[in-house]
Amino acid sequence: MTLDDDRISRVTWSLLAEPSDAAAHATCTEYGAGAGLEILAAEDVGPIARAIEKHRLADPSDPTTRRQDPQVSGRAALRRWSERRRRIDVDAVLDQAREQGMRVIVPGDQEWPSALEDLDKRAPFCLWAHGPGRADALTGAHAVAMVGSRASTAYGEDCAGSFSAALAGEGIPILSGGAYGIDAAAHRGALGVDGATVAILAGGLDRLYPRGNERLLQAVRERHLLLSEAPPGTAPTRWRFLERNRLIAALARVTVVVEASWRSGALSTARRAEDIGRTIAAVPGPVASAASAGCHRLIRENGATLVTEAQEIRELLPHTDPAGESSHAVQDELDILSPVEHRVLDAVPPRSATSPRRVGEEIGWEEREVRAVLGRLDLLGIVRVEGERVRRR
Amino acid sequence: MTLDDDRISRVTWSLLAEPSDAAAHATCTEYGAGAGLEILAAEDVGPIARAIEKHRLADPSDPTTRRQDPQVSGRAALRRWSERRRRIDVDAVLDQAREQGMRVIVPGDQEWPSALEDLDKRAPFCLWAHGPGRADALTGAHAVAMVGSRASTAYGEDCAGSFSAALAGEGIPILSGGAYGIDAAAHRGALGVDGATVAILAGGLDRLYPRGNERLLQAVRERHLLLSEAPPGTAPTRWRFLERNRLIAALARVTVVVEASWRSGALSTARRAEDIGRTIAAVPGPVASAASAGCHRLIRENGATLVTEAQEIRELLPHTDPAGESSHAVQDELDILSPVEHRVLDAVPPRSATSPRRVGEEIGWEEREVRAVLGRLDLLGIVRVEGERVRRR
Repeated sequence: MTLDDDRISRVTWSLLAEPSDAAAHATCTEYGAGAGLEILAAEDVGPIARAIEKHRLADPSDPTTRRQDPQVSGRAALRRWSERRRRIDVDAVLDQAREQGMRVIVPGDQEWPSALEDLDKRAPFCLWAHGPGRADALTGAHAVAMVGSRASTAYGEDCAGSFSAALAGEGIPILSGGAYGIDAAAHRGALGVDGATVAILAGGLDRLYPRGNERLLQAVRERHLLLSEAPPGTAPTRWRFLERNRLIAALARVTVVVEASWRSGALSTARRAEDIGRTIAAVPGPVASAASAGCHRLIRENGATLVTEAQEIRELLPHTDPAGESSHAVQDELDILSPVEHRVLDAVPPRSATSPRRVGEEIGWEEREVRAVLGRLDLLGIVRVEGERVRRR
Repeated sequence: MTLDDDRISRVTWSLLAEPSDAAAHATCTEYGAGAGLEILAAEDVGPIARAIEKHRLADPSDPTTRRQDPQVSGRAALRRWSERRRRIDVDAVLDQAREQGMRVIVPGDQEWPSALEDLDKRAPFCLWAHGPGRADALTGAHAVAMVGSRASTAYGEDCAGSFSAALAGEGIPILSGGAYGIDAAAHRGALGVDGATVAILAGGLDRLYPRGNERLLQAVRERHLLLSEAPPGTAPTRWRFLERNRLIAALARVTVVVEASWRSGALSTARRAEDIGRTIAAVPGPVASAASAGCHRLIRENGATLVTEAQEIRELLPHTDPAGESSHAVQDELDILSPVEHRVLDAVPPRSATSPRRVGEEIGWEEREVRAVLGRLDLLGIVRVEGERVRRR
């Protein structure tokens, strides 16, 4: 079988089966996409049932695998796929996609993001891509996903925009889902500094959704990259968003949740990221802000790393440039003093001079000890010591 | 030696030595307070040097123990204590304290807080107490310390006040340091609901500091309790605040830092609490707020538990009443749906009716599976199923 045969088979499966169709993923994982289609054409339930049994997936709520009897699941799957098979026209979909400038990426292609391998049998059949950016180059160990509520606050959008701009400005691709709110702010932050950003959509790439973000998504498409596992023509329904989230999680090394309500879709992205060993970070906010409740929950209950600035996000990526330093490092001079130095400094009156001896009497130390500490405070420019005379500067 | 002898000896040491005087604590730990005074009277450096060597403390920045030669440290300590010994009048201090209504608490007294034993050789020589509250009853496993910046924001004060009121209203004593800002808000929150609060001061209890909190501290004294390890007449200097912080940390089971700058004294309380196995919690805030930077740091770097409401603080105490539940539990009905339920619901048009069969065709499931999910959605009051007719409510 050639790569092109495999490409056609995988595109066919992306038209036959939903991203959440565990039986389809099990069949293709076990036999390959091409052989899977032959099994479907022969209406041979045995191999499908064996694949389901072998690959019975973790999610017990998925109706395609939760049955006890894999024969029954297999027959249901055959019916489901056969029904769709009669209606689809693979060549027409591919022609239409090509005309619009889209391309299909499958495993084995140079552009196939190796990060998707961590999804194992939940990896997509193929990826639809649109834009000049390369999917392999803009994803993986140096990419950051920034996600969050559509019902965001100005605070959350400011955070997403400024963190995204700072990271993208240093060459870190920003991945998000193209939604209103935090997603849009993350994409805009990157575009604003001419940095790379990838929108991973739940529906087909011919449907820029939500409509209010159409111009934003067009800009991402013209300058960088749109990705989806859904073929053109697919509507972005709520359950496709949940499946899409696993792609965002897998394609980035770190997923940052900027704002999320107590039970937000962004939390599902974070949980999926955690499942495959990705790093989760969350941005805190005011405790009374419902838009931050999910972030606080991730930090409290899921071990997400609290992040407050772009530098703290960058530190979560491998091979971080050690030159960068937290903006918190520069502080009030008094903060750099040790307790011992504070103690000596407190014994120097604010507006009059004293002597090392009197300081020693005041705090119960020997003069020699006091002089050593005063010497350090002098070096720091906090006091001036001249012979027996000490005063604050 | 009677308890009263020990009491006098300990009061004497509290007048001779600063809380941070590691040599004095080592000597009293090794020989007892009374024998320590006899060694001092005999000017016998040998036992002091041996105690210093044996109890050489963790903090290498403390000039009283950091020397290599314990003989030299011992001689310096003897000179320091002898100098003060000549100036102090223990009886006069005790008489004055008694006249003002204060009492002294020492180990062995029923009122001595057993929690202080965790400070080991850093335990105070004695405690000065003022107020009707009992030090043993208002501290320990059910007490919460709430501390933070003097340079607090309205946000931080709101958090401190409301958390304190909620906890104190349920009988949890709130411990704090009597300072401006977060400390004052914590005390006020408890007083406002007639709950118990203890102010642990850095200076003598005859000096209600800061002056702007004098009326607040008077209220705490009249209704509950003031505590200090410093004898009356002691000025509250900066290094005494740092030492005082170890008492706050030890006397409560949980220390909550509500707001703190990047290098705040509240962080020293938290670190001391951590050193002796207490639980540290911190309240998050806006990432750009300097007043929250220390809290975020504690959560990021020190493993402090992020808390957003009183209930989350209460959960950190032993024997928490399990009846309370997070206020976040009540949410939007759609949030309670599983991905499978969302998927079915999405296939039901918003304003027109459909059938279970059509829903199944739309999402590629068998009708029987769809009916099971629709039944649950009906029970939840989200759709109405009548025979072959399904519509949203």
